[in-house]
Amino acid sequence: MKNLLYKLTRPEIEEYLRNSDVVLFPVGSTEQHGKHMAIDNDAFTALEISKRVAEKTGVLVAPVMPFGYSIHHMKFAGSITLKFETLVAVYKEVCESLIHHGFKKIVIMNGHGGNINAVNQALREVRSEQGVIVYNVMVFPMEDGFGSDSLKVCKQESGGHACEMETSVGLALGQRIIIGNAEKWTPPKLMTEFDKKYSTKVATARDFHEITEIGSLGDPTIASIEKGEEMVNAVVREISEFVEDLKKI
Amino acid sequence: MKNLLYKLTRPEIEEYLRNSDVVLFPVGSTEQHGKHMAIDNDAFTALEISKRVAEKTGVLVAPVMPFGYSIHHMKFAGSITLKFETLVAVYKEVCESLIHHGFKKIVIMNGHGGNINAVNQALREVRSEQGVIVYNVMVFPMEDGFGSDSLKVCKQESGGHACEMETSVGLALGQRIIIGNAEKWTPPKLMTEFDKKYSTKVATARDFHEITEIGSLGDPTIASIEKGEEMVNAVVREISEFVEDLKKI
Amino acid sequence: MKNLLYKLTRPEIEEYLRNSDVVLFPVGSTEQHGKHMAIDNDAFTALEISKRVAEKTGVLVAPVMPFGYSIHHMKFAGSITLKFETLVAVYKEVCESLIHHGFKKIVIMNGHGGNINAVNQALREVRSEQGVIVYNVMVFPMEDGFGSDSLKVCKQESGGHACEMETSVGLALGQRIIIGNAEKWTPPKLMTEFDKKYSTKVATARDFHEITEIGSLGDPTIASIEKGEEMVNAVVREISEFVEDLKKI
Amino acid sequence: MKNLLYKLTRPEIEEYLRNSDVVLFPVGSTEQHGKHMAIDNDAFTALEISKRVAEKTGVLVAPVMPFGYSIHHMKFAGSITLKFETLVAVYKEVCESLIHHGFKKIVIMNGHGGNINAVNQALREVRSEQGVIVYNVMVFPMEDGFGSDSLKVCKQESGGHACEMETSVGLALGQRIIIGNAEKWTPPKLMTEFDKKYSTKVATARDFHEITEIGSLGDPTIASIEKGEEMVNAVVREISEFVEDLKKI
Amino acid sequence: MKNLLYKLTRPEIEEYLRNSDVVLFPVGSTEQHGKHMAIDNDAFTALEISKRVAEKTGVLVAPVMPFGYSIHHMKFAGSITLKFETLVAVYKEVCESLIHHGFKKIVIMNGHGGNINAVNQALREVRSEQGVIVYNVMVFPMEDGFGSDSLKVCKQESGGHACEMETSVGLALGQRIIIGNAEKWTPPKLMTEFDKKYSTKVATARDFHEITEIGSLGDPTIASIEKGEEMVNAVVREISEFVEDLKKI
Amino acid sequence: MKNLLYKLTRPEIEEYLRNSDVVLFPVGSTEQHGKHMAIDNDAFTALEISKRVAEKTGVLVAPVMPFGYSIHHMKFAGSITLKFETLVAVYKEVCESLIHHGFKKIVIMNGHGGNINAVNQALREVRSEQGVIVYNVMVFPMEDGFGSDSLKVCKQESGGHACEMETSVGLALGQRIIIGNAEKWTPPKLMTEFDKKYSTKVATARDFHEITEIGSLGDPTIASIEKGEEMVNAVVREISEFVEDLKKI
Repeated sequence: MKNLLYKLTRPEIEEYLRNSDVVLFPVGSTEQHGKHMAIDNDAFTALEISKRVAEKTGVLVAPVMPFGYSIHHMKFAGSITLKFETLVAVYKEVCESLIHHGFKKIVIMNGHGGNINAVNQALREVRSEQGVIVYNVMVFPMEDGFGSDSLKVCKQESGGHACEMETSVGLALGQRIIIGNAEKWTPPKLMTEFDKKYSTKVATARDFHEITEIGSLGDPTIASIEKGEEMVNAVVREISEFVEDLKKI
Repeated sequence: MKNLLYKLTRPEIEEYLRNSDVVLFPVGSTEQHGKHMAIDNDAFTALEISKRVAEKTGVLVAPVMPFGYSIHHMKFAGSITLKFETLVAVYKEVCESLIHHGFKKIVIMNGHGGNINAVNQALREVRSEQGVIVYNVMVFPMEDGFGSDSLKVCKQESGGHACEMETSVGLALGQRIIIGNAEKWTPPKLMTEFDKKYSTKVATARDFHEITEIGSLGDPTIASIEKGEEMVNAVVREISEFVEDLKKI
Repeated sequence: MKNLLYKLTRPEIEEYLRNSDVVLFPVGSTEQHGKHMAIDNDAFTALEISKRVAEKTGVLVAPVMPFGYSIHHMKFAGSITLKFETLVAVYKEVCESLIHHGFKKIVIMNGHGGNINAVNQALREVRSEQGVIVYNVMVFPMEDGFGSDSLKVCKQESGGHACEMETSVGLALGQRIIIGNAEKWTPPKLMTEFDKKYSTKVATARDFHEITEIGSLGDPTIASIEKGEEMVNAVVREISEFVEDLKKI
Repeated sequence: MKNLLYKLTRPEIEEYLRNSDVVLFPVGSTEQHGKHMAIDNDAFTALEISKRVAEKTGVLVAPVMPFGYSIHHMKFAGSITLKFETLVAVYKEVCESLIHHGFKKIVIMNGHGGNINAVNQALREVRSEQGVIVYNVMVFPMEDGFGSDSLKVCKQESGGHACEMETSVGLALGQRIIIGNAEKWTPPKLMTEFDKKYSTKVATARDFHEITEIGSLGDPTIASIEKGEEMVNAVVREISEFVEDLKKI
Repeated sequence: MKNLLYKLTRPEIEEYLRNSDVVLFPVGSTEQHGKHMAIDNDAFTALEISKRVAEKTGVLVAPVMPFGYSIHHMKFAGSITLKFETLVAVYKEVCESLIHHGFKKIVIMNGHGGNINAVNQALREVRSEQGVIVYNVMVFPMEDGFGSDSLKVCKQESGGHACEMETSVGLALGQRIIIGNAEKWTPPKLMTEFDKKYSTKVATARDFHEITEIGSLGDPTIASIEKGEEMVNAVVREISEFVEDLKKI
Repeated sequence: MKNLLYKLTRPEIEEYLRNSDVVLFPVGSTEQHGKHMAIDNDAFTALEISKRVAEKTGVLVAPVMPFGYSIHHMKFAGSITLKFETLVAVYKEVCESLIHHGFKKIVIMNGHGGNINAVNQALREVRSEQGVIVYNVMVFPMEDGFGSDSLKVCKQESGGHACEMETSVGLALGQRIIIGNAEKWTPPKLMTEFDKKYSTKVATARDFHEITEIGSLGDPTIASIEKGEEMVNAVVREISEFVEDLKKI
């Protein structure tokens, strides 16, 4: 517990701040993850990866923000969404509070793709108004992010949802998964030829139920704990290296 | 885990909604609690009491909102505060999301006095805009709330902060407490005769460091796990009775 | 008129500010008060008590803000409500203007329970942003407020609306009251056993017409001018003492 | 008092609404008026003219909104200003409340030039959102408004502030005026040749202290109660005719 | 192109700022202009007049803001409107950006009557927050504005829309006009006797289709390029004189 | 001009709407583009590509929004930025106006990377509130967007600013470019080893002057009109194909 900011007493925090100014702020979402994963998966993953990075690097972890921007998942039961501007405000105000107490190096550990714009907007405004640079890190392995090499353990070639990669990571982190319910995605009836032709070239506000009837994308049936552990190890190792470098600047 | 909304899969939530429309939404804060209690105490307590009520009544618990309105604690390290309007928006939008999926009886389980106005404002607006009544319950025993009779185990006569009552409850719930650091409150130097004379009759924006130098109020040194268990049992029993009655209307 | 800020000329205000920095800012509401009282009662009372305190203490009274937060009264004809955030903004901006001219000790004289949260939010923000402490005083006698002892002249044991206490105060202050229309409250049909059981322990957004069919609570038929005068005298005397103390700090 | 909405009881308002849907809503400001007039003059005039129109036409008068948009007067002691958006919100929400109860013909009786834009913006939004047309009337005689002919009693040729016209009207309405302090305007030192050359052709955010050192414009020393009565009579007569016509449509 | 800020490179702008701090910011609207004029007429005119003034005076022209406040034209196809507060924000933020780089004398060149309140509100706030005076100039000849004398070439006596004056100016500036489609206004069926009687004395939120069935006011059939040139010359000459004076202060 | 919505008269727009519901809405920015390109380049390109697509497909082009989100360029003279929420509001309200008149297929033609989040947020909200899908297209060739194959004419391997690709496109479109001032980027002094190591993996609010001293990225000295024409042709052809497909659904 010594790495969890929120499980410390005030004097312990004061002591930490005399020697360090780094803190990890995990942010996730509460949103349906297909038929087999618990709906807190993005928040859970953000917190679990943050804990592992904190343990390796000795920095503190702030409480996880469990609600995110999930408006496109609202047709699926259990999804909770905040408005974009509300979420930006929450991120900003938590950062401002942390900065107020002397945390000058804040790393937002994000577990949900739908939050990226809100996180980026928040850190843009925090920098303009407070003069403090906040860092935005994805806790899942990403092609152009941390842990990219470890993605080779997966057959999937691009991002998904409750997919082979995400399910494997969940298995490795001890997430609640009913693996027998996992299903491979097939194109839904709502998806037209037009949608398929332009899905990558034209951005639009696609609702998630239009691209998957089962609530997940990709093939979670080929997920495994071994794949997950390799990816978790890679992500934790690389983010920890980043945090070590951050401590030095 | 079967009572935690966020640890369920979507099909499990759909199943629950076919039979019930009750959900508990715990809200707390991350704010200093004197020299001896972890700063997540209000969020922790909201979640722990909610879990116990859920277990007795079979209803679900939404993720806890860990950040609250703690602007008066900002001189003390570790406290995090949102703006009032941001917090109202979070409460409203989580309720709106839950209502959207069919949860028509939402009980906000609040662990932080500073949130009360924001919760009340949120549920006022939810009712006006959605036509749904949301309930606002304090998870600590209160004179005019649930568990009031159990307060007789404490010597303290009115509300405090990280006090005999709150510390006892924390001990009973397994909170991280460094009891050896607990200190009895004595009036701080910043407090004038004027402040004391009108402290109850005139409301004003008093900062917490003006009324306590140690960050706590009351006497946590006389807290005990036995007192805590009696209060926790009373609160859980009475809120559970309320939830059972709520299920019937 | 010499105590009414708004009936002075600019040079007279400049003169006052050379010697004092205290001002009373009465705030009320325009909301139905049963079958027998004029709907401006909360604004009227705030202004009348303010005038009496000002006369005893020599301080100034700002214009009364006649509109408040009365959303729960909107089913009853004549009630006017502002949004919560609008009302907070009005209170803040009036305070900011007064502070701008040198009034550093502002006492908000509130005549409406529904405004309390908005007043408290405003003075919280004024303190954070301007560094000025604003005081929030109820102009009616309250159990834990000014004039509490005088409440013993009433038979009613807790708060009401257009009740014995409020009607008596109105009679003493010269309010327009059609006393023959006053009616004693009886429980309305809309109120369930559930509502009654949890009315004090669980906060919720109850609309006023759900708890009274006649628009008032309590028993105004036993109101009297003598009771009112005793309460008015007590409140004015005690608030005046507070203002005298405030002048000295 | 029978024409004052706010001095009626709820049953009286219900009775009125069975036969009429017209209401006058006076809006003013609290802002310095030179060395000789009380600072509530715009609110006072709005209310007084409204009362006289109501008496002639039998319609009701809502409470006067005493605070307006007076940001350009803030260098002069006693002036109170709301933000533009706050003022628009107040006007809108009062109109929405009145419409909610069945007042479908609302006449905003405005006593302050600085409010005109805010009133117009409010009534634009009320119409778009509620489908109700709200009318915006100036209570002072204006070249292109009501009472224009009566302006011939004054020597001044265009608008002023606490001027011959406004002071005369105040005298006729019983305003508190220290006529011996009235002073004729002379160009202030802050006013440049550039300012004078373009004062009418180019709009800009001129502060009031830049165009008058004494806080008033024009020549109040030639004001008289006779001039005031002629103007008040004209304005009241013409607005009353408008209200009579409004009742018929 | 040397007078168009937006066609310069950064080093050219830096060079300009070493010698001058004046910039013209044209603002217009995209709104129907009857049967004969292109809908960009207000934006087009603002830009064209600005270019001519810039050429005469050597100052720079910022990009034209093409969208304005045209809510009253929305029943007519092609009209685009922003919300009032959005438009104020755009004007403010463009001014703030220009001020940030050293433009201290900003002239808003407005081509649309519906924008006037938003421009004035923006420059009021810019002055309060930035301490910089922004100037608001109409680019059409106005009775009390620039080019007033040239209005004598027109038969129309007051403002119109896509009228003799506006159409003539458009012809002179090379606007796209299908003159054969121009029609003289006749009172529409929606206009009542009440509307006509009080159209000038009472402000209200009149929609444009209620006062014209053809979308224009006045008589564009008597417009001519000669009239337009005389008015354009007058306006450009007089605004240029203003800009020259502005450069000197 | 027949493809420019803003150069049409209202009857022409009504005629178009009887047969089509497609419109292109170009959005850009006004922001420094190194030492050699005009600062309107993103707005200019958005409009020019839109015109060419419109000519090929027969659809209409709305006015270009010249201001965007360029907060990271504010250290460089001439850059103008709106706030994020203001820009989202402008995009939304223009779309809402277009939808109001019957344009149900809106393609936002974006010329500025910094606008992407704001465009996406706007179209997300438009879909939620209006039920209309808006499309977001980049007008420059992009790896994963339209014209991707044509990028092979450039040596540069990833995105830049006023770079080989953007300068070539500008040359082909007739933009004002002082090609002799073009300079190849070299790493600036402000860029640390830490910055370089994590520039792709960690998102943060980097200001543009920290990554380039000259205001451009990449090597514009090897730009050519031939390269530009090939890219412009590819982008126009592929977006036109998209628009043709869009017309059919």
